[in-house]
Amino acid sequence: MTGTVAQILRLGHVEYRVTDLERARAFYVDLLGFVETSHDRGRVYLRGLEEREHHSFVLRKAPSAGVSHFAFRVAREDDLDRLQRRCEAADRPTRWVVGGEEEGQGRALRVQDASGLPVEFYHEMAPVDRHLQRFDLYRGPHVMRIDHVNCQVPDVQAAYDWYTREWGFSCSEYTETDDRPPRLWAAWLHRKQNVHDIALMNGIGPRVHHAGFWVPDALAVLRACDILAAAGEAGAIERGPGRHGLSNALFVYLRDGDRNRIELYASDYLIADPDWKPIRWSINDPRRATFWGHVPPKSWFEEASLVESITDGTLIEPQPPQLQDRPSFVT
Amino acid sequence: MTGTVAQILRLGHVEYRVTDLERARAFYVDLLGFVETSHDRGRVYLRGLEEREHHSFVLRKAPSAGVSHFAFRVAREDDLDRLQRRCEAADRPTRWVVGGEEEGQGRALRVQDASGLPVEFYHEMAPVDRHLQRFDLYRGPHVMRIDHVNCQVPDVQAAYDWYTREWGFSCSEYTETDDRPPRLWAAWLHRKQNVHDIALMNGIGPRVHHAGFWVPDALAVLRACDILAAAGEAGAIERGPGRHGLSNALFVYLRDGDRNRIELYASDYLIADPDWKPIRWSINDPRRATFWGHVPPKSWFEEASLVESITDGTLIEPQPPQLQDRPSFVT
Amino acid sequence: MTGTVAQILRLGHVEYRVTDLERARAFYVDLLGFVETSHDRGRVYLRGLEEREHHSFVLRKAPSAGVSHFAFRVAREDDLDRLQRRCEAADRPTRWVVGGEEEGQGRALRVQDASGLPVEFYHEMAPVDRHLQRFDLYRGPHVMRIDHVNCQVPDVQAAYDWYTREWGFSCSEYTETDDRPPRLWAAWLHRKQNVHDIALMNGIGPRVHHAGFWVPDALAVLRACDILAAAGEAGAIERGPGRHGLSNALFVYLRDGDRNRIELYASDYLIADPDWKPIRWSINDPRRATFWGHVPPKSWFEEASLVESITDGTLIEPQPPQLQDRPSFVT
Amino acid sequence: MTGTVAQILRLGHVEYRVTDLERARAFYVDLLGFVETSHDRGRVYLRGLEEREHHSFVLRKAPSAGVSHFAFRVAREDDLDRLQRRCEAADRPTRWVVGGEEEGQGRALRVQDASGLPVEFYHEMAPVDRHLQRFDLYRGPHVMRIDHVNCQVPDVQAAYDWYTREWGFSCSEYTETDDRPPRLWAAWLHRKQNVHDIALMNGIGPRVHHAGFWVPDALAVLRACDILAAAGEAGAIERGPGRHGLSNALFVYLRDGDRNRIELYASDYLIADPDWKPIRWSINDPRRATFWGHVPPKSWFEEASLVESITDGTLIEPQPPQLQDRPSFVT
Repeated sequence: MTGTVAQILRLGHVEYRVTDLERARAFYVDLLGFVETSHDRGRVYLRGLEEREHHSFVLRKAPSAGVSHFAFRVAREDDLDRLQRRCEAADRPTRWVVGGEEEGQGRALRVQDASGLPVEFYHEMAPVDRHLQRFDLYRGPHVMRIDHVNCQVPDVQAAYDWYTREWGFSCSEYTETDDRPPRLWAAWLHRKQNVHDIALMNGIGPRVHHAGFWVPDALAVLRACDILAAAGEAGAIERGPGRHGLSNALFVYLRDGDRNRIELYASDYLIADPDWKPIRWSINDPRRATFWGHVPPKSWFEEASLVESITDGTLIEPQPPQLQDRPSFVT
Repeated sequence: MTGTVAQILRLGHVEYRVTDLERARAFYVDLLGFVETSHDRGRVYLRGLEEREHHSFVLRKAPSAGVSHFAFRVAREDDLDRLQRRCEAADRPTRWVVGGEEEGQGRALRVQDASGLPVEFYHEMAPVDRHLQRFDLYRGPHVMRIDHVNCQVPDVQAAYDWYTREWGFSCSEYTETDDRPPRLWAAWLHRKQNVHDIALMNGIGPRVHHAGFWVPDALAVLRACDILAAAGEAGAIERGPGRHGLSNALFVYLRDGDRNRIELYASDYLIADPDWKPIRWSINDPRRATFWGHVPPKSWFEEASLVESITDGTLIEPQPPQLQDRPSFVT
Repeated sequence: MTGTVAQILRLGHVEYRVTDLERARAFYVDLLGFVETSHDRGRVYLRGLEEREHHSFVLRKAPSAGVSHFAFRVAREDDLDRLQRRCEAADRPTRWVVGGEEEGQGRALRVQDASGLPVEFYHEMAPVDRHLQRFDLYRGPHVMRIDHVNCQVPDVQAAYDWYTREWGFSCSEYTETDDRPPRLWAAWLHRKQNVHDIALMNGIGPRVHHAGFWVPDALAVLRACDILAAAGEAGAIERGPGRHGLSNALFVYLRDGDRNRIELYASDYLIADPDWKPIRWSINDPRRATFWGHVPPKSWFEEASLVESITDGTLIEPQPPQLQDRPSFVT
Repeated sequence: MTGTVAQILRLGHVEYRVTDLERARAFYVDLLGFVETSHDRGRVYLRGLEEREHHSFVLRKAPSAGVSHFAFRVAREDDLDRLQRRCEAADRPTRWVVGGEEEGQGRALRVQDASGLPVEFYHEMAPVDRHLQRFDLYRGPHVMRIDHVNCQVPDVQAAYDWYTREWGFSCSEYTETDDRPPRLWAAWLHRKQNVHDIALMNGIGPRVHHAGFWVPDALAVLRACDILAAAGEAGAIERGPGRHGLSNALFVYLRDGDRNRIELYASDYLIADPDWKPIRWSINDPRRATFWGHVPPKSWFEEASLVESITDGTLIEPQPPQLQDRPSFVT
């Protein structure tokens, strides 16, 4: 991470806007088994079974759906100051969030990144009991931890440059167009040692396509489908279960009552080497998206969550992408 | 089974016509892990890992795809004679197959049933070593045994009456139209103690839609997809993995190189009571077909294997169905 | 089943004596996820997730541990009368249980069998909703249904003769001593189409060694261990997880707060043929008991539940076995 | 990693001495499904399914069992030089291994560490095709990659100090005695982001207790047992399947034909934070070793592999431990 301004550790949490807190809690807690750390009138703080931090997922009451922000944890408190100075120097808007504004969290820095995505950085977060070995409390498909966020941006190359050069992310796998020269269509970037903390996909943006949560195995993915269908929520299952070629993950995509999207995600792989050679995929290779050959539904390409302005909380008007917005085999 | 002419035990095997024996063997043995008992120039004899009989699946070289016959085992040798007399009395065509014509099998009776399906009955079959505990030889998705055959017929009610009254089958679950009075659209019938040995679906027929093979768990179904896709055969995956509402099975449908279809099938349930109350589904309940809400592809409704005449081996011209040929939600 | 006096269908339920109903319910319902159909001051009625009958497992408050009775379902109401007459003729004690004495059950016949085991026969049982597809209600290791009861008797050959000749049971697998001629040490007998409804093992008896409950897969067995250990009940895990050579089952044995024993049992196989050739094992083949080579703990051989007299409910004094009471490799 | 002399990335491989190369290959390749990259007269080079490096496991023909060395990958070629100078300064013996002496590997540095363990450092290793998505080639229990090495040393505190201060390892979990003050009995240390790359246990040492290989899920662990038992190698299963309290891993320990030991290991957790608070266990907490309560066999505590001198290849005479060599509940 030499040359980068701060040591970013990993994706820490994401905050979703929901119009009906009770409906959202019924979906995420009662059916999907997220652990509820606490709640107040405006927010429910959730975490996965192996997590020791106060929250990795926040549901916030809002007048419309969307994503408020996603947050990376940094190694040291003063990383925040360095990030703030550097973002200012690059004319990126920033805002300090005081300690406790998010329950359990110390002061944090919010930044509108180069693509307009609302990024938070934090170091301090209250510890909580880990449920990893409280198997008697496991419910739902056994969500273990947050894994990544996947975003649509109009200019993937610009966003890629920012995340890799400014913030020290490394690329595990990427997708190119079949043009000559090829153009970068999507990139999977990581700080922690698996495939990604953030994926950047060409599309109408800035939008958050989904947050991905780690589940321990393929059966968890199937169990999620069974539970949702049994509860009359089969409509929440948008795509999958399937196997991604890219990342090798066993996945399912779910839509909550506000049509915000999450992915349950299992079985990618370890990347512990900084000189990992990124894996290239063509946008038009069907095995990239779904190794077994299924064509994703159009909604998966068309729909994503609007994101907030970090300064005034309004939803940002997204812009059209620079490249084709889906593979040629999706019509 | 009082009143029935013979004690049918279970589906015993199915014989598929394939145009390229080596390609079919590569698919079923090398990729899907069926155990090969033996082969000659015209046939490959296969079985599942828990089976003690010579074969449950035969691939026969033929000039075109299709299904030669499927076979039920009967409890006693003389059941065959009684079946022959009764079929003759009912004007159903029959033919004796001499012992050894199918390797390992004693004399057998072939009948064109009331719908024109080519049914074989046999009692004697050579025993072979069971591979159930030869875990070191397990390959592919771990096919354990044949489970059922699913057939399309133009008049399900007539076929149902024949199988239940003449041959002693019981109904586990069934599908009706939403007409008043409702009309029988499909029926799952069993002799052994799970959901079915044979399913009869309304459709262009007589045709065999698929043979279903039992796998031990959901992971086997996923592994089949992974293996096929890795070998460049993702095109063989037609539908699934998914969960059926009807039967509760975790399933995937595969098409071989001749577009004959099999199902890998796990996790239905025990029916040990003769007074089991059949479970009713509406043809238009989407959870019936796919509990998780996925819409089956059109090919699944439209395509099926032609069947042979038991007398001359020619393929029988199928007839249109009496009822709508698919649910209203499949367009 | 020609020649037998009645058509026995399957093991239907078992009734355990427990000294503390609330403790027992905490174990079986809260931790192991049995579905509670109902309860009164003296009994809790439980069932598995796929069962449509009122109960398959009864916990009854009693001053000491033990097994009250186990029950087979018969095909017709008048099977009960025929069984009663035949048992009387054979000098076996019988008693009629009036309808409703066990909640949900019609009149039933209790018999002290040839070994002194308390057997009940019933036909009528109230139907209840099946939870098979209520995946949102699944808890614990996902107990699907009762599978079998395993009993210790002093004279296995005599018990075997009674169950096979009088009651129409068939043998799937058996264990012999290495004597010449060999002597029958244990037998796995079935009416439904898997390995057993009842196992008879040489030992101090009459005693019930355990009731076996069906779980869908190996992971369910592991999950039971995780849940119990997390709840501070690791002491309940007596033996396993392991693989039986005999039956091929993936198993774990658990002891409740009264030291009554149950088995969670997955992955045996189908036996749909009445002419199934029983599989022979030597008592001293270590793979028979535990395919992976683990030696069962002594308690597993020494301890079992006393059973009730069907006439006065007292516990029957057990007798020593005729043969060695454990394999040579268990010291 | 501030203050440390070099950036160690992860455990890269281990080299086992085997007296019969063909027997060892039959065990590791034919039964356990390791991928064979290449072999010569003296060595077989193996890797796991997700690995992109030439080897993570070497079998080397030798006159007796034991462990030749284990190797950590470093981030840069010149890390090797810095490590060499620092070890020399600390009077640790070192030796350069020329490029290609281990096939596929660049020049490497061998060091006898503070406890006498034979450690190798390397940077360059030939890339090979990853089999992660060659599901058609998966065999055995699906070994994905090397995970860790577990060593017995007489003075855990001294070894711990060396690994954490000199080489930049972090502690995830540790075991203390119940003395006051407590004494460090074992420590799990990591560079990559899971529980460990190396564990140091109090015991007769220097010895390598086992190398741990990552498998994708619990079923892989069970499948290993099934495969070994089916092949007549049940004697290779020493301990487990079980769940560790410490690390949460689902495990089984296997012994090869030379009684070298490996662990198959699944389902620990992510540690992406450098300020992770280590988890403390008491040596006498039975849940630490086996969450489900099983007592490990004595052999597991008593037996381990001797290690080589890096200078002359002779086996090092081990020394007795400073503390009790096993928990009080193992007698």
